[in-house]
Amino acid sequence: MCQLLGMNCATPTDITFSFRGFSQRAGITSDHCDGFGIAFFEDKACRLFVDNQSAVESPIAELIRNYPIKSRNVIAHIRKATQGKINLENSHPFSRELWGRQWIFAHNGDLHDFDPVLSGRFTPVGNTDSERAFCYLLDQLVNKFGYIEPSLDQVFDLLTDISPRIAEHGTFNFCLSNGQALFSYAITKLHWLVREYPFKPAQLIDIDVEVDFSQVTTAEDRVAVITTEPLTQNEAWTAFAPGEMILFQYGKAIRHQMTHVERLIREAKDPSLKRVTKADQY
Amino acid sequence: MCQLLGMNCATPTDITFSFRGFSQRAGITSDHCDGFGIAFFEDKACRLFVDNQSAVESPIAELIRNYPIKSRNVIAHIRKATQGKINLENSHPFSRELWGRQWIFAHNGDLHDFDPVLSGRFTPVGNTDSERAFCYLLDQLVNKFGYIEPSLDQVFDLLTDISPRIAEHGTFNFCLSNGQALFSYAITKLHWLVREYPFKPAQLIDIDVEVDFSQVTTAEDRVAVITTEPLTQNEAWTAFAPGEMILFQYGKAIRHQMTHVERLIREAKDPSLKRVTKADQY
Repeated sequence: MCQLLGMNCATPTDITFSFRGFSQRAGITSDHCDGFGIAFFEDKACRLFVDNQSAVESPIAELIRNYPIKSRNVIAHIRKATQGKINLENSHPFSRELWGRQWIFAHNGDLHDFDPVLSGRFTPVGNTDSERAFCYLLDQLVNKFGYIEPSLDQVFDLLTDISPRIAEHGTFNFCLSNGQALFSYAITKLHWLVREYPFKPAQLIDIDVEVDFSQVTTAEDRVAVITTEPLTQNEAWTAFAPGEMILFQYGKAIRHQMTHVERLIREAKDPSLKRVTKADQY
Repeated sequence: MCQLLGMNCATPTDITFSFRGFSQRAGITSDHCDGFGIAFFEDKACRLFVDNQSAVESPIAELIRNYPIKSRNVIAHIRKATQGKINLENSHPFSRELWGRQWIFAHNGDLHDFDPVLSGRFTPVGNTDSERAFCYLLDQLVNKFGYIEPSLDQVFDLLTDISPRIAEHGTFNFCLSNGQALFSYAITKLHWLVREYPFKPAQLIDIDVEVDFSQVTTAEDRVAVITTEPLTQNEAWTAFAPGEMILFQYGKAIRHQMTHVERLIREAKDPSLKRVTKADQY
């Protein structure tokens, strides 16, 4: 299994504080040592740093802890390999260009017997279940919308339709961003919070570091942080409900939807209950 | 204009020596200060570092100079902006996934009135002539070969057909790699050399650094280096002929072809001389 960290902000913000705590879990406070990656959007483009060394030992992770790259959308991942070798092509986040934007995806969980037919438009470079799921999601977006870029709400609707069906194959918690917004989905475990005015001090759980955000922010700042396990000990983190999809934009949770996993599982067991949707195609 | 650096090797090799000299040109020995980027392949995947700071000032470039990332195929670029803003989405190298591999492209030169029809399969994220040319090349590969991955020779043949036609729009020197090999093309300026057994010392031109490669290599090592301007003062660099395409694999130039630019320019002026090829489609 792996751990996820996402950040969506109203104004470009650096993630050094959260990443400092998060990356401790790659060998010090937890054993997610099999590679790490982090993607920082700047408008439609992004910087993607990946390494198959742990985020504790990697010189690239050390750079990220110390170089304040400001971004409105960030996705990071530390890996504990369950499927696929420990090499670069299996390191999350994964990226693909679609509609003239980079799309970035990181997954926590395991999928079993998930082998959908892919069109060839997006082909996995490595051999993880995660990259296969990413390519499948993007394939479905192109199937539905062709080469005309849909709205965020349309993407959200399609994701809420497809994601629970992928989740029938195992555990499917993810963060996905196209640089405009961040889509997060959890079947088993994700937490989130929003930091906004009036800002307060925050203390990391994994390392003895505290930042008083009231000293380093303005009233316009607002930051949503999404993570597998809470990062701070003195802030109120909200757990995702099983099957909850949240759309974050401008540092706010602007849309929530429950995807009714239990119902879909019942449908899978009793085909007579099953809705017919595009996602049935795999 | 910009400067290019490519490396293709028989065994995974680090590029710290060449990059140390090359990156001096981003503000010290030359004025290519408007961003830099470098991509390192590991099999089918790659690490791509880009920054819109100069390669002299960027902490990411400093990491590259000191962190010996070993790779068989590397492409780097330092930018002096002529078209497109100085931002991340316009920083070379550009990357796309095709046939389950990353493809990496960097361009030196300017293209004018180059506005081909693109299918939508590959869409520029930024607004440079260079990324447009890359998307066009990949589009033509998919047009010709569909979702069946062609051989390197087939890719080489298509590139030698299309590249001179793009070059009719201005200056088109590039490095392109899919992790298996490196394709280089020059209309105006590229140089190359091969370092192999028996290795000798090499002295950089842009900074007072010398490495005795005989001390840090084995007989199995072989490295081809491709660059806009020679990097060392005591090695024999070969200039590309105008319109020459070279395919590098295992640290060797395994195929050369002249693309007869002059003839194509004459054809463009006198349509009755023109050959009909797939590349006429734009």
